[in-house]
Amino acid sequence: MPVVTNGQLIYAAHPSTFMEPGVHTHYVEDQLDTDTIPLNGGVLIKTLALSSDLYMRLRMQDSSAKMSFPTLTRGKPVDNFGVGVVLRSESPAYTAGDFVHGYINFEDYSIVHPPAADAENSAHDFQSLKKIHKHPSLPASIYVGTLGMPGQTAYSGWKAFALEKSKSSKTLFVSSGAGSVGTFVIAYARLTAPHLKIISSAGSAEKLEVMREAGADVVFNYKTTDTATVLAEHGPIDIYWDHVAGETLDVALENMASFGLIVRAGTNSGYNENKSGIKNTGAFISKSLSMHGSIVGLGDVMIKALEGFEEEATKLVLEGKIKNNETRYHGIKQAGHALADIHLGKTLGKTVIVVAES
Amino acid sequence: MPVVTNGQLIYAAHPSTFMEPGVHTHYVEDQLDTDTIPLNGGVLIKTLALSSDLYMRLRMQDSSAKMSFPTLTRGKPVDNFGVGVVLRSESPAYTAGDFVHGYINFEDYSIVHPPAADAENSAHDFQSLKKIHKHPSLPASIYVGTLGMPGQTAYSGWKAFALEKSKSSKTLFVSSGAGSVGTFVIAYARLTAPHLKIISSAGSAEKLEVMREAGADVVFNYKTTDTATVLAEHGPIDIYWDHVAGETLDVALENMASFGLIVRAGTNSGYNENKSGIKNTGAFISKSLSMHGSIVGLGDVMIKALEGFEEEATKLVLEGKIKNNETRYHGIKQAGHALADIHLGKTLGKTVIVVAES
Repeated sequence: MPVVTNGQLIYAAHPSTFMEPGVHTHYVEDQLDTDTIPLNGGVLIKTLALSSDLYMRLRMQDSSAKMSFPTLTRGKPVDNFGVGVVLRSESPAYTAGDFVHGYINFEDYSIVHPPAADAENSAHDFQSLKKIHKHPSLPASIYVGTLGMPGQTAYSGWKAFALEKSKSSKTLFVSSGAGSVGTFVIAYARLTAPHLKIISSAGSAEKLEVMREAGADVVFNYKTTDTATVLAEHGPIDIYWDHVAGETLDVALENMASFGLIVRAGTNSGYNENKSGIKNTGAFISKSLSMHGSIVGLGDVMIKALEGFEEEATKLVLEGKIKNNETRYHGIKQAGHALADIHLGKTLGKTVIVVAES
Repeated sequence: MPVVTNGQLIYAAHPSTFMEPGVHTHYVEDQLDTDTIPLNGGVLIKTLALSSDLYMRLRMQDSSAKMSFPTLTRGKPVDNFGVGVVLRSESPAYTAGDFVHGYINFEDYSIVHPPAADAENSAHDFQSLKKIHKHPSLPASIYVGTLGMPGQTAYSGWKAFALEKSKSSKTLFVSSGAGSVGTFVIAYARLTAPHLKIISSAGSAEKLEVMREAGADVVFNYKTTDTATVLAEHGPIDIYWDHVAGETLDVALENMASFGLIVRAGTNSGYNENKSGIKNTGAFISKSLSMHGSIVGLGDVMIKALEGFEEEATKLVLEGKIKNNETRYHGIKQAGHALADIHLGKTLGKTVIVVAES
């Protein structure tokens, strides 16, 4: 190999509701010579694992959308958090063999320029490529899951907004608790605030088992059990970790305790369909509630709360105190399905695309 | 005068939409002997001024409502923040002639028991009767307005949630900016963060003038000017001080800057009609927004932020830096109208019931 096949997932069109592989993304292939392709001061990366996240749906819209992160560009490869290994480098910051984490194109091989030189592609400014100390006994994919953005989201969101409040709290409610952020939050809350009663919801028996294993005390299937009834029985809720918004947030608002806290880390009800609105805005005043939207690594508070993550989370994973549940898709060709299926509740734990084993 | 006529405003029925005097409240009179009426360890107060506040509508509902403050009791007098003077006292904490502020019945004369002995009436536990240093050149009514709960709401809410953020902010939007909380927020923001561009909305030309006088840079009538257009032109909004919720909050959410802050101090769109819901919950995540519901004196953060209020606000009023705008109703007989009219946008500044001059 210097000449290799490079599969790419191209972003093709803005979906109006749910995205479909082959319609909103296209898989294409070309070839490149890994020895001779010009790097222009950048690095050539072989992709190992890519992440499929719900928030990617927000990036699938017109660039006029006002967000803290960039939209995808039609005709260009999809990109998202990924892990790769450096094959060649013209940058003093990277050496062949380095494992790196950052915004990586949905390609088998990609060239990443140093952040400063990369002004044309704002996606790559969002989180520049960082070297990671890949633990030899852990798979690369864990660095886009439990030890990557979802784990960081849970860890820094909890520390930034909920940890202090949890000391004087009795109850925590986590919706979509079987996802990669949800299970981390449940497990980390269990460790840092063992006195909490943790209530958690998801949409299948398999998912309830995952949440219970993570440390939840009360688990329920929101499709078959009325959320309001469960929260009324086990509440009031001091901390609500919300991945859903919409009706679930409304029911939570009705069942929040005074001075309750809501940390918002997802809007599952609104990514594909416009069901994320709420009625109970009055509860914020009548019960002195606070609510924070959080995105990992954005804003001083969230950046500071990330300190210590790598060391602490790696230790907890190696000790088995935080489990890494993954649903794996293999190869760039399957990446469109990985992006779509996560919105259909078909996946369990972290949804990853394993592109190469090493 | 030992035998006096005691007018009372009785809470009669829960309104389903807007309240009506004579329907949901009844005015009645009886007589009492101020020299001989038994106090049972309490104090006899002559009411000087009472407050009409929008949030009182929340108290006009079934006692099962989950709130940080108590509902009104049918068949008993309405109560709310008021100022009175002590006529007789059987408590060592009060002396005849003391001016007091606290939860006071809508009566010409009322007996208030010491907080500890008053367990049957939770309303009076909410804020127990406090002696105030009434300034000789200021009217008693100012202590239910600029120097009372509305001023405290603005002052402590601003200090607790917005002051720090205002240092790195460019824009503040205040809805219902001509009310007693709104004008205080505008004036106090002007003083503590002079660099801010302050945008403010209300529903009449007279109110726009009040907001401009308080220090707003951009004022508009939301009934005749499109809020979205104004916010798009003068935004994005770093801090939104919300008295309205509903459509206005939705439009503000669309126009918030990343890491924007919303302080909620009212739900005007929801007190009488169910119009306070919002659609744009996704903005909390996509723009890392925070929102806090605030009630004066409830919660450690708000209690701490009240420190220094009396001294600082009195000075600002005496210096003319914060204006006291009042709409006055006279006597308990008019109190039902004072409670109703505030919801119809008929009043300007603080709505007060002046019960006696001294």
